[in-house]
Amino acid sequence: MTPERLAKIRAVLDKRQPDLTVLMERVHKPHNFSAILRSCDAVGVLQAHAIPARYGIPDLEEAESLALKGKTFNETSGSAAKWVGLQIHPDTASAFAHLKSQGFQVLAAHFSERAMDYRQADYTRPTCILLGTEKWGVSPEAAELSDAHVIIPMMGMVQSLNVSVAAAVILFEAQRQRLQAGLYDQPRLSSEHYAEVLEHWIIRHARGQ
Amino acid sequence: MTPERLAKIRAVLDKRQPDLTVLMERVHKPHNFSAILRSCDAVGVLQAHAIPARYGIPDLEEAESLALKGKTFNETSGSAAKWVGLQIHPDTASAFAHLKSQGFQVLAAHFSERAMDYRQADYTRPTCILLGTEKWGVSPEAAELSDAHVIIPMMGMVQSLNVSVAAAVILFEAQRQRLQAGLYDQPRLSSEHYAEVLEHWIIRHARGQ
Repeated sequence: MTPERLAKIRAVLDKRQPDLTVLMERVHKPHNFSAILRSCDAVGVLQAHAIPARYGIPDLEEAESLALKGKTFNETSGSAAKWVGLQIHPDTASAFAHLKSQGFQVLAAHFSERAMDYRQADYTRPTCILLGTEKWGVSPEAAELSDAHVIIPMMGMVQSLNVSVAAAVILFEAQRQRLQAGLYDQPRLSSEHYAEVLEHWIIRHARGQ
Repeated sequence: MTPERLAKIRAVLDKRQPDLTVLMERVHKPHNFSAILRSCDAVGVLQAHAIPARYGIPDLEEAESLALKGKTFNETSGSAAKWVGLQIHPDTASAFAHLKSQGFQVLAAHFSERAMDYRQADYTRPTCILLGTEKWGVSPEAAELSDAHVIIPMMGMVQSLNVSVAAAVILFEAQRQRLQAGLYDQPRLSSEHYAEVLEHWIIRHARGQ
């Protein structure tokens, strides 16, 4: 590895936000899945979460490994999937249990009576943005479990945005708030965690994955 | 047409922004083209501009008409293309000449030495956001002609966003500034222009297009 490459990897890791993430609840179109990971990479998400669209995947580790290698989700992400961790959860309840145990507020991109403008949420707190499946959106179960619902104000005839576009719009609002709050100014990972991820990334790079 | 439908059409037209637009310079993937029109609809763009990806289209009016009917660009826009006007220009120079004659500043989504963070631009002025082709971005000619270059801060390993994602992120920043400035609070079209577009939309609706 060249010194320049190592410096680039470190510069990116310096900005990774362990307390900003997304949960993709059965997003099933590969180009959406990949575009969301690409936006995650761009705003510094360390690790994303997903509930697979298809039930009964026999081996969750295999699904995760495929996703990490960009082999199932490679249409638009380029190499983003390599640099954003992906944790797979078997169902909505266990995904929420995990996120809550980590102290995340979950903000569902979901229209409801209790929905607020996405710009009113505080993304400097540990935050997970929940994105639902393309056709049906967030499940009723996930909507119920979420701490708040956020919507993007729509001024036009069309009622909704593509899920990857909505994800990007919300993630870049989070980036805006976090830039203002100085959360990209110094490394956010503990030195132990930082060293672990760095080693992982260096090995991945060396393998040419 | 039901009174509810007419009210909806009027409510959307009340928020249309004649002084906010995009110029798509040879964006050639239909799903990107459509997703950009969908975001345009969502932030109230009245009319978008495009330089077709393929040269030598024999009949520009035909291209425009197809685009308006959503027949060539229908993958992700749903009906957005019906409600955002699209003006086709044969080349970059004539697109710029038209936009400049209308008083638009052109902000190119383009990385360069003179690029600024997209959030620093003033989108309350008459503004056209220029988006380049998927692979190569904005042409050197268009970059040169643009009033300013804007970039979206990228914190990750991947260097760029998908063009439709970038368009949405910038357009919703424009929406944010225009909401704050009260530009959605009352109709922005002259009463003559408003009546003309309203008639056009009512006829289109009646035809079921």
